[in-house]
Amino acid sequence: MATIIDGKSLAKKLNENTRLTVSKMKKNGIIPCLAVIIVGNDQASKRYVRSKHKKAEKLGIKSIVKEMPEETTQAELLKVLNDYNNDSDINAILIQSPLPKHIDEKYIMGQINPKKDVDGFQIINSGKLFLDETENYPVACTPKGIMKMLEEYNIELVGKKAVVIGRSTIVGRPMAALLINAGAEVSIINHHANVNDYTKDADIIVSATGKLHTVNKNDVKKGSTIIDVGQNLDENGKLVGDVDYQEVSEIAGYITPVPGGVGPMTISTLMTQTVELTKWSDSL
Amino acid sequence: MATIIDGKSLAKKLNENTRLTVSKMKKNGIIPCLAVIIVGNDQASKRYVRSKHKKAEKLGIKSIVKEMPEETTQAELLKVLNDYNNDSDINAILIQSPLPKHIDEKYIMGQINPKKDVDGFQIINSGKLFLDETENYPVACTPKGIMKMLEEYNIELVGKKAVVIGRSTIVGRPMAALLINAGAEVSIINHHANVNDYTKDADIIVSATGKLHTVNKNDVKKGSTIIDVGQNLDENGKLVGDVDYQEVSEIAGYITPVPGGVGPMTISTLMTQTVELTKWSDSL
Repeated sequence: MATIIDGKSLAKKLNENTRLTVSKMKKNGIIPCLAVIIVGNDQASKRYVRSKHKKAEKLGIKSIVKEMPEETTQAELLKVLNDYNNDSDINAILIQSPLPKHIDEKYIMGQINPKKDVDGFQIINSGKLFLDETENYPVACTPKGIMKMLEEYNIELVGKKAVVIGRSTIVGRPMAALLINAGAEVSIINHHANVNDYTKDADIIVSATGKLHTVNKNDVKKGSTIIDVGQNLDENGKLVGDVDYQEVSEIAGYITPVPGGVGPMTISTLMTQTVELTKWSDSL
Repeated sequence: MATIIDGKSLAKKLNENTRLTVSKMKKNGIIPCLAVIIVGNDQASKRYVRSKHKKAEKLGIKSIVKEMPEETTQAELLKVLNDYNNDSDINAILIQSPLPKHIDEKYIMGQINPKKDVDGFQIINSGKLFLDETENYPVACTPKGIMKMLEEYNIELVGKKAVVIGRSTIVGRPMAALLINAGAEVSIINHHANVNDYTKDADIIVSATGKLHTVNKNDVKKGSTIIDVGQNLDENGKLVGDVDYQEVSEIAGYITPVPGGVGPMTISTLMTQTVELTKWSDSL
């Protein structure tokens, strides 16, 4: 039976570290501050933003939530963003996606100060990751959180065969880059691919397809590490991942559950990255 | 027997296209201009710069070669670069590597105006490639030239298994990104890896290791496409690639020779990219 990679517990531990770090920073007069901008009335987005806000406050991070109405113009949004970009008290900025259709989301996202890009989605930060730059820069929180899990469970990466299924700009691509930079041999494939061709000999599999049954027991090697980024609803409306958890966990060496695996690590990484951006900021 | 991917002929054809394009642009009063800065006395670098200069002139591209002495300070170099960055008559800038040791090469390269970054090595341009941005931006010339070869010979990429051996920032990584963006399933591996594990089922193999015998006949599938970026000297001092050409060409479907394959395509792509940067520039 595979060891369960307990993202929930690890996230708690990281959050506790973050809380302690923040409390030390406060003694030196530094308060990490995360600003989240949300435009419109998307209920799921509002829920996400609220949970980020609560988590930040719990850890001592100052959290600003700027709610703007659906009819906000691009110019109005840009004005707020620019104020935040230039406000030295704000260390991290997140604009909740999706934005209303009349706003050019790609353009707006590109206007976040790259040093405050807590999501790590910007071109310049992605470029640094892709080129394996050694300086400090933010990285997309989901893959960064996964790297912490692999580290925590002492999963070796150098020279290992890793497969990333899914090639999105926010999970698959940065995940592949992090694994390449860590010295793994990395295959990045579409969910259309014959997944089995790649996964059957793989030491590490990261599935980020959002498709049920992307990985089943015939796709995995004994003792391999399975990271499941998927958040899908099964036929009974139950939250499950991309991986057939029950059967795969009988073969794998390590596996992340859904829920309680990758999910909690993403928000915990958002918090650690807020603190990192604060430490890296010019003002210190 | 494999079809030889004749880089030399294709480069000639592309150069002829470039020459015609430039001559049309000139009729509209536009002269693409490439500026190359070389610092110091490295003889190989001087040779490269001379051949770029000759090629550019032959195609009607205005070529500026700025030779600066070994003892040039970083500030002096930066001054010249900034003049070129701001000179609207200069469309493409290349700083010949290596720079003398007292100059921070990474820093200097980062100061090239990204819209004139004809080598496509800059963080922002690499980030756009990695994120598969749709706007126009320059891409590293060797992998871009390889894509043109694959296109010319109608090598299918969508859903195909591609392996890139070598993970350098100037060949392996951008090559992998271009193949991912083209819809291939891409493995990017170290030359330390068990190459055969990846290549034996691959439809496309790009070797960029600079190591003799990286790919031999047992490593390739019948009918596959073999791209050899290596430029190595064998035991007799003869220029050869990473691939055991003779034996592999008996199995592969398509293969690039060394010399006469990837090499000529790189310089021809440098020229087409100079013209593209001119077309994309704000002034047009």
